[in-house]
Amino acid sequence: MSSTERLLANAEHYASTYPDQAPPGRPSSGVAIVACMDARIDVYRLFGLDPGQAHVIRNAGGLVTDDAIRSLAISQRFLGTEEIILVHHTSCGMQGLDDDEFAAQLERETGTRPPWRAGGFTDAAADVRASAAALRQSPYLARRDRLRGFVFDVETGRLDEVDL
Amino acid sequence: MSSTERLLANAEHYASTYPDQAPPGRPSSGVAIVACMDARIDVYRLFGLDPGQAHVIRNAGGLVTDDAIRSLAISQRFLGTEEIILVHHTSCGMQGLDDDEFAAQLERETGTRPPWRAGGFTDAAADVRASAAALRQSPYLARRDRLRGFVFDVETGRLDEVDL
Repeated sequence: MSSTERLLANAEHYASTYPDQAPPGRPSSGVAIVACMDARIDVYRLFGLDPGQAHVIRNAGGLVTDDAIRSLAISQRFLGTEEIILVHHTSCGMQGLDDDEFAAQLERETGTRPPWRAGGFTDAAADVRASAAALRQSPYLARRDRLRGFVFDVETGRLDEVDL
Repeated sequence: MSSTERLLANAEHYASTYPDQAPPGRPSSGVAIVACMDARIDVYRLFGLDPGQAHVIRNAGGLVTDDAIRSLAISQRFLGTEEIILVHHTSCGMQGLDDDEFAAQLERETGTRPPWRAGGFTDAAADVRASAAALRQSPYLARRDRLRGFVFDVETGRLDEVDL
């Protein structure tokens, strides 16, 4: 049995516990969370979220990329979110990753250079601030003022706030 | 108290329940999940995941964008994932969204046209197949063969598999 098949068996069970009254499509908290894809961060449990409460955008690093801006613009303009939480974390696989080296490696292997930078960084808090800056510079977001940023400590489960 | 403050109070509580033995950084299931940011989809509860088991990539629509490819490339090459699950869903805010109209609206409001397409679609299953095709075409992914795609029914909590 593959891992996917085990996960799908769990999903069968989940459906049997799903509420009769479906959760709302418009996030009831008005919050959108941008977090790293890291397996250790269960965003719903971390923030005590029920289905229907917040948008959750995740990618490698929790970076505010163009694609995260796209998602946030849709979140704000069509589904009314007004607050943003950024979550990066300690012991990230992207920490110390050299973007140029990775791009060169991919180019050697595949014959083409990727159209994106990997997004490696050295300091998690500085990386949160860089994401906050990218967000504040985007003209496509209606709300950029209610923004908080954190580094999740994967050893303790605590969020350390970053001064933005 | 803002919504963010309520979520942060929940996060304080979460830290007190965090396991002494931190979960692994390398996803133990070897699975990466690409899902829509929709608030109704709690990916961990849906698939019965514990922290440390799977990478979770999310954006508006659950699309396989360049940024999702970046995340998957890092997931596969540095953290060993080998299987991919795509999750789109019914009643998506992107269903029926006209990309050109949205881009024109943003251009009227901000004076610049966004560098991304919103990713509107008409049929959720066809959209999953389009994401699967984008993924299979990417040279940067080491593993593209163990791939399953689903439409999550927000009314019932069930996953309907899409023939890829």
